[in-house]
Amino acid sequence: MADPYIKPYLMTAGPTPLPPAVAQVMAEPIMYHRSPAFIEVYARCLDRLKQVFQTDNDVLCFASSGSGAMESAVANLVRPGKPALVASCGKFGERWAELCDAFGAELVHHDAGWGHKVEPAELDRLLSENAGVEVAFTTLSETSTGVVNDVAALVEVARSHDVLLAVDAVSGLGAVPIPQDEWGVDVVVSGSQKALMCPPGLGFASVSERALAYADAGPGGRYYFDWARTAKGQRKDPPDSPFTPAVTLFRALDVALGLILEEEGLERVFDRHRLLGRAARAAVAGLDLDLFGPEDENANVVTAIALPEEIDGGKVPKQMRDVLGITIAGGQNQLKGKIARVAHCGYFGAFDILISVVGLEMALRELGADVELGAGVIAAQRVFAEAGEPALAPAAGA
Amino acid sequence: MADPYIKPYLMTAGPTPLPPAVAQVMAEPIMYHRSPAFIEVYARCLDRLKQVFQTDNDVLCFASSGSGAMESAVANLVRPGKPALVASCGKFGERWAELCDAFGAELVHHDAGWGHKVEPAELDRLLSENAGVEVAFTTLSETSTGVVNDVAALVEVARSHDVLLAVDAVSGLGAVPIPQDEWGVDVVVSGSQKALMCPPGLGFASVSERALAYADAGPGGRYYFDWARTAKGQRKDPPDSPFTPAVTLFRALDVALGLILEEEGLERVFDRHRLLGRAARAAVAGLDLDLFGPEDENANVVTAIALPEEIDGGKVPKQMRDVLGITIAGGQNQLKGKIARVAHCGYFGAFDILISVVGLEMALRELGADVELGAGVIAAQRVFAEAGEPALAPAAGA
Repeated sequence: MADPYIKPYLMTAGPTPLPPAVAQVMAEPIMYHRSPAFIEVYARCLDRLKQVFQTDNDVLCFASSGSGAMESAVANLVRPGKPALVASCGKFGERWAELCDAFGAELVHHDAGWGHKVEPAELDRLLSENAGVEVAFTTLSETSTGVVNDVAALVEVARSHDVLLAVDAVSGLGAVPIPQDEWGVDVVVSGSQKALMCPPGLGFASVSERALAYADAGPGGRYYFDWARTAKGQRKDPPDSPFTPAVTLFRALDVALGLILEEEGLERVFDRHRLLGRAARAAVAGLDLDLFGPEDENANVVTAIALPEEIDGGKVPKQMRDVLGITIAGGQNQLKGKIARVAHCGYFGAFDILISVVGLEMALRELGADVELGAGVIAAQRVFAEAGEPALAPAAGA
Repeated sequence: MADPYIKPYLMTAGPTPLPPAVAQVMAEPIMYHRSPAFIEVYARCLDRLKQVFQTDNDVLCFASSGSGAMESAVANLVRPGKPALVASCGKFGERWAELCDAFGAELVHHDAGWGHKVEPAELDRLLSENAGVEVAFTTLSETSTGVVNDVAALVEVARSHDVLLAVDAVSGLGAVPIPQDEWGVDVVVSGSQKALMCPPGLGFASVSERALAYADAGPGGRYYFDWARTAKGQRKDPPDSPFTPAVTLFRALDVALGLILEEEGLERVFDRHRLLGRAARAAVAGLDLDLFGPEDENANVVTAIALPEEIDGGKVPKQMRDVLGITIAGGQNQLKGKIARVAHCGYFGAFDILISVVGLEMALRELGADVELGAGVIAAQRVFAEAGEPALAPAAGA
């Protein structure tokens, strides 16, 4: 049993906290997926998703986690025995490689290293050396390290080689800009449970006509995640899903997208994430700690902090959760015990950052680190105050 | 906008109505999937699923619709270029055939016809004639027609040919018995949104060790739905999902499985569905209408009614929904306009059947059919009264 006198704070990069209005709508009576009432919700979601992806493409929806949306990209674009390039810099980039392997690609894997960015020049070099590559996969926001790649530049390189680029924007979409059509990104995949402020269970793939045509030319080996099947359903009037949609999660998505687009506005959402990221990085500097990865003003999804070597870093998330009630994430795989990750994607405001930082200070001190209580929080407060946003908050709805 | 003076009644075979306690829990603050609180819910669901599937197998869980769970069976069992047998009798059986095609099987398709059962003798004949078949696929409850197949007999035939049988129990599981281990069913797939009284978005595959081993011997071509990957995660201590689980739907599932197993009890749940099915069929007879498909005391998931030829059958669901507020399903594909389907799987009691029948009588009369008002409902009332269950109801929880 959880201690009833611990007030829980969720500060992870997915599942992220839900606005109350998003959570509440899921308690309403369930809708039949072919009822006029649900079709209205579904059609509005499809339209609003286009606005968030900043595209005219149909945003294909799957009842799946974000990894299911990633699988859709691989299952539709990879041809067994043919080369596919993956440019990764962390755990989720490596998932692209695992997927390409599973689907029989001859994998060309560029591993930029955890905590590094994928360099456009490296992609250019690799695509020159591997002229047979027609499809490539990379990551916008690498949740395992906080790194945000320069997708605009990577797309430009891919285009110059006439290569289709699919981008994992699961944690990035709605937190940092990825204007799909403006940048010419062929495929953007995402999920519901990060900056879109919904529960996990919906996967999205926004697919250009060029990528759809490429997929059509290589049929077979897919069904549930087949883009053409889902596109055909969604393009009907009224739109229809080929498989029973997760109606409850669409109700949540409808409310969340309304908050993002109608209440707060997408630009303000990006501005908010920018300020949250800046404050988080200022706190790290204030505590005289190091960021894991480069100082980057676009890295506004999750801030990864290199933990002091004098403490047992693996204990930090546990200390924060069990003693303070604050759930942050530690490092994954080779970064276990080495970093702490404080999220700020989705329904996060100034006080969420401040709570995370205050808690981190207390946990680090308790575990024997030489940090000054208050040094981080003061630095973060200053960022919010100087921006004229001392109580920066997302739209919460009614 | 929906007419505010129409009180909505959901009488479809998925999504099915939710018990209030199931709906309410989804409005609670979201849980981090690696938190002790969620792991407790997740582990309890995994354990309770085994009880509902009546198996010692791990019941593998996917964030997907039921069709995703079906895809998992095909992606794990079908070998490209090798034969696979599908024995179908309706729309969802045909989905097995489409899946096998998509995954490159040399398809042996036995179509028993919509409204017919798959005959064990036919399966026996086909497996004798196609000795290369190692895997076969069929359906427990064919939602498109209401037919419930004799899975115990079909499994016996498959076993005698040393063929693995995968059964779609999406609408059947928890409504009609399919004691997996007792019957020796290799693979049972299901979904959350039918008799399990949850929203759509969770797919399940209960896989025998024999089927897991068969899958392991043919790797590749799958990732998200790879059984070994999910089994490995679920067998960890504590159990873990390889991809972010749909935590909100697991909260709902936890409550629903508690109602089924702890409050009502699985045997009573089956008894209730038996009585609901009997009452629905009695109503059809009372109205002097015909069932679509065989009179079958096991067909207790959905009752398909052949609509009188003198009316425009396609108008029946619309009339019931728009005028009376009752959502039932019509026929799909070639049965469009020919049948009406009244569901009784999941959170259904006597009054749900009575409302459906009363509404159907009114709609049929209004559309010009020669039916006697009250004749159906009286016949159904009698069934409930004679069984000593005039107000038969599922457990609703607190």
